[in-house]
Amino acid sequence: MTEDDPRRWRSTAHNVVYGNPWIEVSEHAVIDPNGNSGRYGLVHVRKLAIGVLPIDHAGRVCLVGQHRFPGDYYSWELPEGGGPADVAPLISAQRELKEETGLTARGWLPLLSMDLSNAITDERARAFLAWDLTEGAPEPEESEALRVKWLPFGVLLAEVCAGAIRDAFTQTMVLKAEVAFRQGELPAVAAAAIAAGHDV
Amino acid sequence: MTEDDPRRWRSTAHNVVYGNPWIEVSEHAVIDPNGNSGRYGLVHVRKLAIGVLPIDHAGRVCLVGQHRFPGDYYSWELPEGGGPADVAPLISAQRELKEETGLTARGWLPLLSMDLSNAITDERARAFLAWDLTEGAPEPEESEALRVKWLPFGVLLAEVCAGAIRDAFTQTMVLKAEVAFRQGELPAVAAAAIAAGHDV
Repeated sequence: MTEDDPRRWRSTAHNVVYGNPWIEVSEHAVIDPNGNSGRYGLVHVRKLAIGVLPIDHAGRVCLVGQHRFPGDYYSWELPEGGGPADVAPLISAQRELKEETGLTARGWLPLLSMDLSNAITDERARAFLAWDLTEGAPEPEESEALRVKWLPFGVLLAEVCAGAIRDAFTQTMVLKAEVAFRQGELPAVAAAAIAAGHDV
Repeated sequence: MTEDDPRRWRSTAHNVVYGNPWIEVSEHAVIDPNGNSGRYGLVHVRKLAIGVLPIDHAGRVCLVGQHRFPGDYYSWELPEGGGPADVAPLISAQRELKEETGLTARGWLPLLSMDLSNAITDERARAFLAWDLTEGAPEPEESEALRVKWLPFGVLLAEVCAGAIRDAFTQTMVLKAEVAFRQGELPAVAAAAIAAGHDV
């Protein structure tokens, strides 16, 4: 009775109550894991959440700043965006990085995979570490108004640890990179960049 | 033009398209940061996401297992739940820990604060590290069918780093605890527990 636990949610009917290009909200008639009847509002997120931690040879990380509508605050985050479900996450990550910052990278490593809010949505996230960067012109989407700034990795980590960066996806990417670095799991060039970013 | 950047999303009208006790979905007519008109579907999450990382003197962490409906998979996670907006997060954390695992704790430390999916929802999360544990009887909610297991902290960290635990909130709590431990920021008793959990 662990992964084989037969007690699960079951949907007996559902209807779509809202949809737009990013999300679809459905209400399901459900039987809960204990056999009780109920309702469950499920937010389907159409795209994969894609994140990138781009770090240069000096250990500086590129962040983007923008106003976030749902929480109504200005947010500095790692480059993030939505990738179509039928596109390889790495391809979407390379596109998002270029669009938001103008950067291209020659070094790429999968950093993490996670589900962002798994009691309410089915949103999945994939992130990459990117290094060996070349600067270029950003290509923002029509609705995006982004600022870019660079922070040494150690300063960014301190901001995450202090709660100054609210975005969960950014927090997790930075913490995961730090742990992978401390555990000696990163390629030499990426590890050297993070080491440099601690020494500033 | 950073935190003072005037370019922001503005709502000119909205209507509620769905609501239940956990979420309310609204569609807003918006002006985007570049001045274009558009629509924005916003998922308001009524409760605060509350998480607890409970660790015993031997460095073992208590996890709960359950079927997650939105992603349709069995998920081992740290104890998590929803806290009413008008209740102090620590009080909700103590209640959730007791309900899901039966545990009470004498040691509590704020671990992190973050926004789980800030382009779609306004869901906020608060987490705590809990130690000096006493076992008791769980008090699950009517719809919950939970399993409990204990893992040494080091094993849990390895599972998080391998992507075996999909829940983002759990990943972030474990990574944050590891980084705080490595940086010497934890109270002595909590640090000793995490150290023990690495040595198993």
